[in-house]
Amino acid sequence: MSEKKSLITLTTDFGEADYFVPVMKGVIWSINPAAEVVDMTHLIPAHDIYAAAFTLMCCYKYFPRNTIHVAVVDPGVGSARRPIMVMTDDCNFIGPDNGVFSYIYERAHVNRVVQFTTEHYFRQPVSSTFHGRDVFAPCAAYVSKLVDWRMMGEEISDPVRLNTPTPVVMSKKQIRGTVIHVDRFGNLITNITPAELTEELVRAGARVRIGAHEAARVLTHFAEANQNELFAYFGSAGFLELAVPRQSAARVIEARRGIEIEVLIP
Amino acid sequence: MSEKKSLITLTTDFGEADYFVPVMKGVIWSINPAAEVVDMTHLIPAHDIYAAAFTLMCCYKYFPRNTIHVAVVDPGVGSARRPIMVMTDDCNFIGPDNGVFSYIYERAHVNRVVQFTTEHYFRQPVSSTFHGRDVFAPCAAYVSKLVDWRMMGEEISDPVRLNTPTPVVMSKKQIRGTVIHVDRFGNLITNITPAELTEELVRAGARVRIGAHEAARVLTHFAEANQNELFAYFGSAGFLELAVPRQSAARVIEARRGIEIEVLIP
Amino acid sequence: MSEKKSLITLTTDFGEADYFVPVMKGVIWSINPAAEVVDMTHLIPAHDIYAAAFTLMCCYKYFPRNTIHVAVVDPGVGSARRPIMVMTDDCNFIGPDNGVFSYIYERAHVNRVVQFTTEHYFRQPVSSTFHGRDVFAPCAAYVSKLVDWRMMGEEISDPVRLNTPTPVVMSKKQIRGTVIHVDRFGNLITNITPAELTEELVRAGARVRIGAHEAARVLTHFAEANQNELFAYFGSAGFLELAVPRQSAARVIEARRGIEIEVLIP
Repeated sequence: MSEKKSLITLTTDFGEADYFVPVMKGVIWSINPAAEVVDMTHLIPAHDIYAAAFTLMCCYKYFPRNTIHVAVVDPGVGSARRPIMVMTDDCNFIGPDNGVFSYIYERAHVNRVVQFTTEHYFRQPVSSTFHGRDVFAPCAAYVSKLVDWRMMGEEISDPVRLNTPTPVVMSKKQIRGTVIHVDRFGNLITNITPAELTEELVRAGARVRIGAHEAARVLTHFAEANQNELFAYFGSAGFLELAVPRQSAARVIEARRGIEIEVLIP
Repeated sequence: MSEKKSLITLTTDFGEADYFVPVMKGVIWSINPAAEVVDMTHLIPAHDIYAAAFTLMCCYKYFPRNTIHVAVVDPGVGSARRPIMVMTDDCNFIGPDNGVFSYIYERAHVNRVVQFTTEHYFRQPVSSTFHGRDVFAPCAAYVSKLVDWRMMGEEISDPVRLNTPTPVVMSKKQIRGTVIHVDRFGNLITNITPAELTEELVRAGARVRIGAHEAARVLTHFAEANQNELFAYFGSAGFLELAVPRQSAARVIEARRGIEIEVLIP
Repeated sequence: MSEKKSLITLTTDFGEADYFVPVMKGVIWSINPAAEVVDMTHLIPAHDIYAAAFTLMCCYKYFPRNTIHVAVVDPGVGSARRPIMVMTDDCNFIGPDNGVFSYIYERAHVNRVVQFTTEHYFRQPVSSTFHGRDVFAPCAAYVSKLVDWRMMGEEISDPVRLNTPTPVVMSKKQIRGTVIHVDRFGNLITNITPAELTEELVRAGARVRIGAHEAARVLTHFAEANQNELFAYFGSAGFLELAVPRQSAARVIEARRGIEIEVLIP
């Protein structure tokens, strides 16, 4: 009943129409027939490392211990960028060293970051355009077979980190944050969590300023919002989000990832 | 060779680009690592309970006994609508009590409908926006581990039912039906089956009136239809459908779900 | 650790929104609960047998021995076209006899082609529109249960073959090839491989003529290409491809599948 799985998840920008994703699965199963492979999503916008990093952050903690999360959003494929594995207390992450694991470095207890260097574990010959098939899939399959990381590569100390801004509580009346993701509905996801903007501050009448616009209310339910109202709420990923009912907030207020916001408490 | 699976299917309007679907799978596997999770579709139009109900009706009977079908098309999430399980002779259905199981009530032998009330089986804290993760996925996982429904909730007698019209045989010359689904090709699927419109009546020259339009023939193969011809045929889901070759019948004759039709036999 | 899987892959033009794909999986598991079913893609353009044949060719060799590859791109469903299984040394292919396995006949060691004739192994009644559910899925499931092919049908000697042109080395200075696929980015994939266009010939300054256009360089990395430059490179599927950075080469030079190309070596 509690059979142990070797779970491997895939997060890519390969889309669902081409041979890239099934080929990665075939390579994994050719090495470890017992592995279970599950799709996170393959619809990350092409080369959007930030979006992949956000998706990983939202998903990884819901998976069982020892899950291996593979991320292949890899604009630098074929260049000198390193193939790495981030080993945490609970699970491992495999992908290119381009910052896609930035949120993991901040949130998980990272025991080490390993650069894969042992070509024995790569599919030969290694192409210059498809390391998902030739490097990341086979390495994930060998890790799922419990090959020791010391056999596969070397520890590194300087993995690439994206700029992932943290919210700042300026005073009891002001919190500064940043839009870190725009979802496909145009909702703006900020980096502010209930740790900064507590329930008490919400009840005190917190409002959110973004550029020349303002969300006057932090609501609990979408249904409470008025037509055309820009409003704030805590989304299911645990972040403060900005939305307009049945419209794209990103389009309505012309906002995008990276824009700063301000929470004001009266 | 005949290893028993704990099969759980997922039908949602979450799309395939976001973290919602993989998070539901992660939650299920964290509770029951032996569960097999399979996607029905995640491309139900947002909040379209009727479309989800139709998809479930078309799929469920092809799955092995004891499969658990989870449907999360849930515009009322966070409100008072109840989380339920519909237990039939062959399989169980889990989702919000908003009518998404209406066709099941009509077609399957329902033994009971249970409202999940025991918070122990929910993921804590339960969010107000993502019961797929916090209620339906964990409850499905526990049911797949054979937790008794009496532990999880209470029987109810008044589940919500959508208006699912049944065809009416008016006379030997007339059957009245309704368009119950429009597929993504624009084909119009009615609720009329071979039980009402028998092969004999088709051979007798049955034709179908819909608004000001008429399908003069009930064909066996698409290939027999003429260009621009509105024609009828029995689709693979077992219902009489209306189509125009290589065009959207819905657009050509401006029809949509809910419209009434009439089969006339000479 | 090396548990054997009964792997069945699915390649179809059914899309991901409808009940077709999950119904095929349900039928398979109802017959063989131990089968593992994996999606290649369901986004083959409707009725595009060539595209399905190309996808199969790119994927099949990465899967473990004994995998069963099911392809349902079947414009002739309900007509007299035969349901077949192509049995090779390493794996089996199941689908309609419409040419979808043409590349397999050329590349794999085919031991026999079998027409399924024993209705016992079909789902009854067999519909005229959905043989994926009624013929191919159940036959794949029975094959995965190691039912002998002699029970299921008869060997045939004349399977349908598409026109799949082979490249011709005309001289030391000229190779003729054909565009065999256009991917969703508009890249033009030709049938020329490193067997014809060797590394040495590339280094000698090979260029590619296509209609009135020319790719003056065969590059190793996308990054080396100039803006608006039509260039050639060997893609991860092992074929010479033509592309324009961040644009659709197919649109820029108005090319499509079937067009001939010429490699010229100085």
